[in-house]
Amino acid sequence: MNDMLNLKDIIKASKNVYRYLQPTPLRHYQTLSDRVGTDIWLKHENHNPTCAFKVRGGFNCVASLSEKQKQAGIFTASTGNHGQSIAYASKEYGIDATIFVPKGANLGKVESMQSMGATVEYYGKDFDDARAGALKASQSVGGVFVGPTDEVLIAGVGSYTLEIMKELPDVDVIIVPVGAGSGVCATSIVAKTINPKVKVIGVQSKQSPAQQRSWKNQQLIEADNTTIAEGMATGVPFSNTQEIMHQYLDDFILVDDKDIIKATKTLIETSHNLIEEASAATFAAALKMHSQLKGKNVVLIMTGGNIAKQNLGNLFGGN
Amino acid sequence: MNDMLNLKDIIKASKNVYRYLQPTPLRHYQTLSDRVGTDIWLKHENHNPTCAFKVRGGFNCVASLSEKQKQAGIFTASTGNHGQSIAYASKEYGIDATIFVPKGANLGKVESMQSMGATVEYYGKDFDDARAGALKASQSVGGVFVGPTDEVLIAGVGSYTLEIMKELPDVDVIIVPVGAGSGVCATSIVAKTINPKVKVIGVQSKQSPAQQRSWKNQQLIEADNTTIAEGMATGVPFSNTQEIMHQYLDDFILVDDKDIIKATKTLIETSHNLIEEASAATFAAALKMHSQLKGKNVVLIMTGGNIAKQNLGNLFGGN
Repeated sequence: MNDMLNLKDIIKASKNVYRYLQPTPLRHYQTLSDRVGTDIWLKHENHNPTCAFKVRGGFNCVASLSEKQKQAGIFTASTGNHGQSIAYASKEYGIDATIFVPKGANLGKVESMQSMGATVEYYGKDFDDARAGALKASQSVGGVFVGPTDEVLIAGVGSYTLEIMKELPDVDVIIVPVGAGSGVCATSIVAKTINPKVKVIGVQSKQSPAQQRSWKNQQLIEADNTTIAEGMATGVPFSNTQEIMHQYLDDFILVDDKDIIKATKTLIETSHNLIEEASAATFAAALKMHSQLKGKNVVLIMTGGNIAKQNLGNLFGGN
Repeated sequence: MNDMLNLKDIIKASKNVYRYLQPTPLRHYQTLSDRVGTDIWLKHENHNPTCAFKVRGGFNCVASLSEKQKQAGIFTASTGNHGQSIAYASKEYGIDATIFVPKGANLGKVESMQSMGATVEYYGKDFDDARAGALKASQSVGGVFVGPTDEVLIAGVGSYTLEIMKELPDVDVIIVPVGAGSGVCATSIVAKTINPKVKVIGVQSKQSPAQQRSWKNQQLIEADNTTIAEGMATGVPFSNTQEIMHQYLDDFILVDDKDIIKATKTLIETSHNLIEEASAATFAAALKMHSQLKGKNVVLIMTGGNIAKQNLGNLFGGN
């Protein structure tokens, strides 16, 4: 555990983040506070470019490359926010990014990565195939392969929690949605190193509970993966983020997709921000845990705003 | 014209704005640029608290009050963003705000103002009645009445254009939706004083063209007012903003509600931000004027994100 990522690494990485990004707002919402019966703050990571927290990691990753690596380019596999974050940061630095996606990947997301100047390669039938393709391609040209939970990404992502601790030093609870786990790990390291009394709580959907079950049982367990919340849709746990969560996380709860969908509608209506389902799961969790949250300052991480337009239609089409 | 609001007033006011707010992002969108055939940037005023540019004016207004006025409180009439901006800034300063609204005002907006701690008084049948009520109430207690186009508001609002001129000094064209006119006036004064070559273009809906017709004909003309775009829905012109527009504005065009609705959908899908119709009118205008915009850096002001949920349903419900 000696070389586990720490607060100092994250502070160092934040310099690479703030060269291109500015802090995102942390806002108190009275209407949401009244619903939960405590003080609720939203950390608007959806205000970042690419509308997701991951772009912070992308900037730290690209800034950390050697000149030779920058020339050879960066390779990754992704079907969503991770790929967009690497594409966006690479474009700002003027280096080539190649994103491997499985055949049949969401066309909207592919186009978004292409519009940021990335080369998109269709490869294989699922994420694991695409990952293998990206790794092989990177090796053949001496480029760098970046996986979705690489430490360099977690280090960059940590900057949003530095902002929370600075702006709201009296925060008591931070609730974070968990996909691969880079967000929750970064939040835990920063918040609990600065103030061990802060409770950090992870959330997944009951319909995709692999990371939660693995954390509870202290072993890597695969599970069904059918949630509507793309940002939390993992059927497998990730060993490096499990290790960090094991050390730092206070609790990890599950909420049902039905409640996530209701929470998404509530957050969009209340905040007038587009909020994706994974982010809204934190509000569903706060409602579920309301009796434990009384009298506390609770921050919910709005990890992203990339809700699919058909889901938006389903939420608001009935009005 | 000697005492017309100027760049120096706006720079001075910006100190009151940045005491509470941070600059909003100015972002280049390749997909929108490809659609118009030039470089398109969105100024994300929807990222402000209250999700609208007007909050900048609210902060300058409240900061400008004397101690005696602060104790007596602030009074205004509004059915929307203006009232929210005064309510929000007043709350931050801990002073009382009373917002007069006509009977039958939109309940969602009333609740939003109340959730920011404002007192909402129902008064009369329309905005003019509510305005008279607010003025009378302010006089009875020695409080300050603030109208929607008061100079103190325009001065605060100007800070977003200071940000544009700093971040993108090579901007060629800025397109702004026009309601009462505080936004377009502030933009014109800042942009054209710093660089007279910048073209500032106002936009209204064909379904609510009072300000545009008044500007074109150089006289105050009332007109039908049936646009879906609440932020541009004025049936009457405002004399003080007409005077500033007369001096500074390069062009003022009309777009049809049908095209505004399409543009709203495009901007929400592309930017993953909630964008209200008035803001999207700028993109409809850019599409309409595309042949004049070739090779230019064009900034569209996203004045706000407060789209009504039934309109959101109409946009995305069919998917």
